[in-house]
Amino acid sequence: MAEIQAWASYGPTQQLQRYVYDAPPLAAEEVEIAVEYCGLCHSDLSIINDDWGMTRYPVVPGHEVVGRVVSAGEHVKGLKIGQKVGVGWNAGSCMHCHQCLGGDHNLCLSAQPTIVGHCGGFAERVRAHWVWAIPLPDDLDMASAGPLLCGGITVFSPLLTFDIKPTQRVGIAGIGGLGHMGLKFANAWGCEVIAFTSSESKAEEARSFGAHHVVSSRDNAALLKMANSLDMLIVTVNLPMDWAGLLKTLKPNGRLHVVGAVVEPMPIPAIDLIFGQKSVSGSPTGSPVALASMLEFAARHHIAPQVEHFPMSRVNEALEHLRAGKARYRVVLKADFD
Amino acid sequence: MAEIQAWASYGPTQQLQRYVYDAPPLAAEEVEIAVEYCGLCHSDLSIINDDWGMTRYPVVPGHEVVGRVVSAGEHVKGLKIGQKVGVGWNAGSCMHCHQCLGGDHNLCLSAQPTIVGHCGGFAERVRAHWVWAIPLPDDLDMASAGPLLCGGITVFSPLLTFDIKPTQRVGIAGIGGLGHMGLKFANAWGCEVIAFTSSESKAEEARSFGAHHVVSSRDNAALLKMANSLDMLIVTVNLPMDWAGLLKTLKPNGRLHVVGAVVEPMPIPAIDLIFGQKSVSGSPTGSPVALASMLEFAARHHIAPQVEHFPMSRVNEALEHLRAGKARYRVVLKADFD
Repeated sequence: MAEIQAWASYGPTQQLQRYVYDAPPLAAEEVEIAVEYCGLCHSDLSIINDDWGMTRYPVVPGHEVVGRVVSAGEHVKGLKIGQKVGVGWNAGSCMHCHQCLGGDHNLCLSAQPTIVGHCGGFAERVRAHWVWAIPLPDDLDMASAGPLLCGGITVFSPLLTFDIKPTQRVGIAGIGGLGHMGLKFANAWGCEVIAFTSSESKAEEARSFGAHHVVSSRDNAALLKMANSLDMLIVTVNLPMDWAGLLKTLKPNGRLHVVGAVVEPMPIPAIDLIFGQKSVSGSPTGSPVALASMLEFAARHHIAPQVEHFPMSRVNEALEHLRAGKARYRVVLKADFD
Repeated sequence: MAEIQAWASYGPTQQLQRYVYDAPPLAAEEVEIAVEYCGLCHSDLSIINDDWGMTRYPVVPGHEVVGRVVSAGEHVKGLKIGQKVGVGWNAGSCMHCHQCLGGDHNLCLSAQPTIVGHCGGFAERVRAHWVWAIPLPDDLDMASAGPLLCGGITVFSPLLTFDIKPTQRVGIAGIGGLGHMGLKFANAWGCEVIAFTSSESKAEEARSFGAHHVVSSRDNAALLKMANSLDMLIVTVNLPMDWAGLLKTLKPNGRLHVVGAVVEPMPIPAIDLIFGQKSVSGSPTGSPVALASMLEFAARHHIAPQVEHFPMSRVNEALEHLRAGKARYRVVLKADFD
């Protein structure tokens, strides 16, 4: 047994407290990673608050981990002690279902989330199945890479999965933590990029992130002008939207792709899907290969999330900053255990 | 000018009446087809009743036309006088937009429906752009081929468009005019086929059409047993369904595909799309190449809709039969003008 220092919440809305847990012997396929940085994601808040009814307390949040392998089980493949790796939403999957065997490990029905029934990255060390400890390219900045592992892959994966081509037009709705990375990725992908935001104040920044055009998502006339123009619209917002209006911005064969877990069911008119052969879809994080491909792509295109740093010891202050909607655009904690 | 004998409706809910119209000179890219058979489709009823607010009276319905080319404009390509052809929902498209140039003519935003602002197939002759007059294979039975041109392609096209593989599991919800052809196509495609029907009485027939399993769509326990099992579910019903329940029958990466134009928006939970990377989509009829491929596939696999015949002079009786939900499974009119 090894003691691991961490930060944990004991119940909804509770402040995180210092927490020490006894980790069992490392499993044969697991690595242990010394955490250097860990991003703060909205889904950490959702899990802390048990918004999705799946939280197990005490919960150690943190699933945008960047660190180095410090220990490896005897069946670990492809990783070395000291190697820089990242861990995202998943810390494991069954490795034998069709999804895992087919390369879609992120769709494994028994995937192990990093922060549900498993201790996350607001800690000095974290564990993961080797397949989910993704090697970091040497030239990727560790201090800002964390948010790529969850927020980043969430907006990157749809470009890869749905075979988006650089000749296509991609919209990103919601210019926050995920959206600003979506703009950067879609721009580097070679696409014409349109930002949809309800916040006028973000228009200039959206352009700096890679948007070629910025459209107010509250302006019906502006939405109407966009009719039949997008191949894909990635919605990062988790609030109800004018779904029928957004569908109309799609070209024939277009796709409205949601990655924000809006609670209210989306009222989708069948006729709008039928006439233009359109799709509405969603996706969760990405596969290990998608994660590795994204990190290489980010390094090659010098793409980094725009981050604010807090020492991990000020995690509660950082959470409050995020909760208040003040994060511009993503918060990263630097591990500072003694 | 040439006089064409036809059947037309002058207003919603009105009986069809004999109607003669003057056709202008044949356009350079048009063919004129002597109608031998014409299928009767639910969307003929919708257009007669102006359910979609797009009807132009007097309307000559009929968009599942089978006949022979009797006249061809000077720029017609690939067709000969006397050739057997079929015409479906579309009788024309712009031929120069990206959709037309890309082979997706059925997604052309200015496609010309056969029965909206154009005289359809309840007539002795009908006209179409040559690209939409689809050659019929010699060994396809003309008397039953009509319903393939609209109902058939509507359920065939998704298999082709979304790259369904014979190793996959396909569900067909609603075993009526479209659904029974869907079962036949999916079975011949090599898939494992599951019929969803609310009508116990159709179970045995569904099996005879090609279903390997039949599930009651009103039985929640049965639906639950199907969880995570389908790669695609094609919904041919145009009534509100338990959309969230149906989504759960899909495997990760699965697709719920609607071809029935249900009026009420479908309440789709984002979370069910996100966790399994699922899609909800729709499609309208099919492209000229898809139509031609379907006809060849149907001929090679001896697939024919199960039809009931009426002489065209008894069209009002046939419409009443369809309206009453008594069609088993598709009605075809045989042209009998003097």
